[in-house]
Amino acid sequence: MALILALDFGGTKLAAAMTNLGSREWLRYERCFSPANADAKTDLEMMRSLIYALLQDTKPAAIGVSFGGPVDFTTGTVRLSHHVAGWKNIVLKQLLEAEFGVPASVDNDANIAALGEHRFGAGQGYDSLFYITVSTGIGGGWILNSKPWRGTAGMAGEIGHVVVNPDGPVCLCGKRGCVERLASGPYMAQDAREILFKEPAKLQGQRGKILTELVNNDLDLITGKVVSEAAVKGDELALNILHGGAWALGVGIGNVANLINPQRFILGGSVTKSGADWWSVVQKTAHETALPEIDFDIVPATLGDDAPLWGAVALAEFAL
Amino acid sequence: MALILALDFGGTKLAAAMTNLGSREWLRYERCFSPANADAKTDLEMMRSLIYALLQDTKPAAIGVSFGGPVDFTTGTVRLSHHVAGWKNIVLKQLLEAEFGVPASVDNDANIAALGEHRFGAGQGYDSLFYITVSTGIGGGWILNSKPWRGTAGMAGEIGHVVVNPDGPVCLCGKRGCVERLASGPYMAQDAREILFKEPAKLQGQRGKILTELVNNDLDLITGKVVSEAAVKGDELALNILHGGAWALGVGIGNVANLINPQRFILGGSVTKSGADWWSVVQKTAHETALPEIDFDIVPATLGDDAPLWGAVALAEFAL
Repeated sequence: MALILALDFGGTKLAAAMTNLGSREWLRYERCFSPANADAKTDLEMMRSLIYALLQDTKPAAIGVSFGGPVDFTTGTVRLSHHVAGWKNIVLKQLLEAEFGVPASVDNDANIAALGEHRFGAGQGYDSLFYITVSTGIGGGWILNSKPWRGTAGMAGEIGHVVVNPDGPVCLCGKRGCVERLASGPYMAQDAREILFKEPAKLQGQRGKILTELVNNDLDLITGKVVSEAAVKGDELALNILHGGAWALGVGIGNVANLINPQRFILGGSVTKSGADWWSVVQKTAHETALPEIDFDIVPATLGDDAPLWGAVALAEFAL
Repeated sequence: MALILALDFGGTKLAAAMTNLGSREWLRYERCFSPANADAKTDLEMMRSLIYALLQDTKPAAIGVSFGGPVDFTTGTVRLSHHVAGWKNIVLKQLLEAEFGVPASVDNDANIAALGEHRFGAGQGYDSLFYITVSTGIGGGWILNSKPWRGTAGMAGEIGHVVVNPDGPVCLCGKRGCVERLASGPYMAQDAREILFKEPAKLQGQRGKILTELVNNDLDLITGKVVSEAAVKGDELALNILHGGAWALGVGIGNVANLINPQRFILGGSVTKSGADWWSVVQKTAHETALPEIDFDIVPATLGDDAPLWGAVALAEFAL
């Protein structure tokens, strides 16, 4: 039976697991946190020890790797990590192939999640889908004709930087009104903080009261998750911001439907846990933005925390 | 030598031509205008006579058809014509195969143009491209992995109804600020007319003066072409409107680059003949909207008036 080795460089944590080809259960599983002062070298050393703990006296048939940052899939090169220093143009594929003597494939986490959901999750049986992670950042991965579509330079899927409101607030990328600027957790938190710093909740009637209470009046503690929680509890300011994010994502999805007409959209990431209200605004806006003839559905990702590892298994299978 | 028969149902005109497989010259070519009161039945009768005039005593190996309206490629069914009555769910593929006994393939004009440019025009040697027609309407066709991508229900490519300004004017599709609402010829003309009806050029200084003179003060005669002409001659109102259209198209293209990362964009249609200024706004806006890492170029279509026929040849070749 062929063994598949799956690795996840997740930014704050590292994980490695092993499964038999075609199985849906892990034979062995190891993980650890990446320390605060980690760099590429320590990450690689820690991952090596996880791998050797897993492998014992076995040898995998193929290795699949999910990396939380831009990757050139063709050469298996990590271009950059936004979280860990020292990851710059490291040819991870080559390092792994040299050490373990088997084919290794490396891709970014969004493409990997699309692959994982297609092979094992909410995308099984779908020829075309777009996976979107809505979390600290917003990005996506494509399956078209049942295969990953990465774009001519591996840059496809950047729905986070699709402009949906050219008069909106400025994003880190320099443009105004990107989906990520409006719908990602940190930016929703930033918007809430700025509004409450300017005009505290007590001056706004009930607006922002629950939100302020949830952080014990320390506005610096507001996160995307806190905004979602306050919205669920009926805080009007939080609801406004969350709806604005859901609207932006919905316009982005509707535009993607008009352009590419995939069968299904799959959403994962922390912000997708913001409740039924958030989902309903996303769904409604997306269908209003798409032409009426264009049919699609929008469903939650199903693979959960192990998504990068199962996606890495799906990727490794292509090499067999 | 295998003969390819290419047909173009263009809305206002019908054309048929024949070439040898692999050739870039027409053996024979026939065309005629579709009369003002044409319906699907008369269009089909006229096309039959063009075909029989072409074929004489020969028999084609395959037939390719470009249709100016939505088509279900899989079944070869014309769903609708926006120009000619009676085209509703007509299985054109089946009609042609029954009459001529050879494989027939039918697709809409935007997909056909993408195919034609890929096979014979500005897209030769490119794995991925997006063709956009900017004319009375705005639509597009995809080549991904060197093959047409039509979407799960054949609806991919609708860049005309991508929203680029949610606070913009209302489009016929019901949404605000679609690319087509801002950048198509008829809508640019409508915007110019409405501004000048409200506030004639003489009250605006030079704004709109040249535009008004070009139509001898009869504002109803303003078309997209007239707006372009006035802009080239320096009319400020016309320039504003044309730049607004070029901006909208540029945002749409930049968003597409972020989402799909194709190698090349190819633009055809009457509005693309609006001069260097229009092109430069489209190019600049598209590159500003795309992430800096995303590389692409935007070039004019090269096949000209015969594009639908050459595209139909490329389509027919797939059946051989």
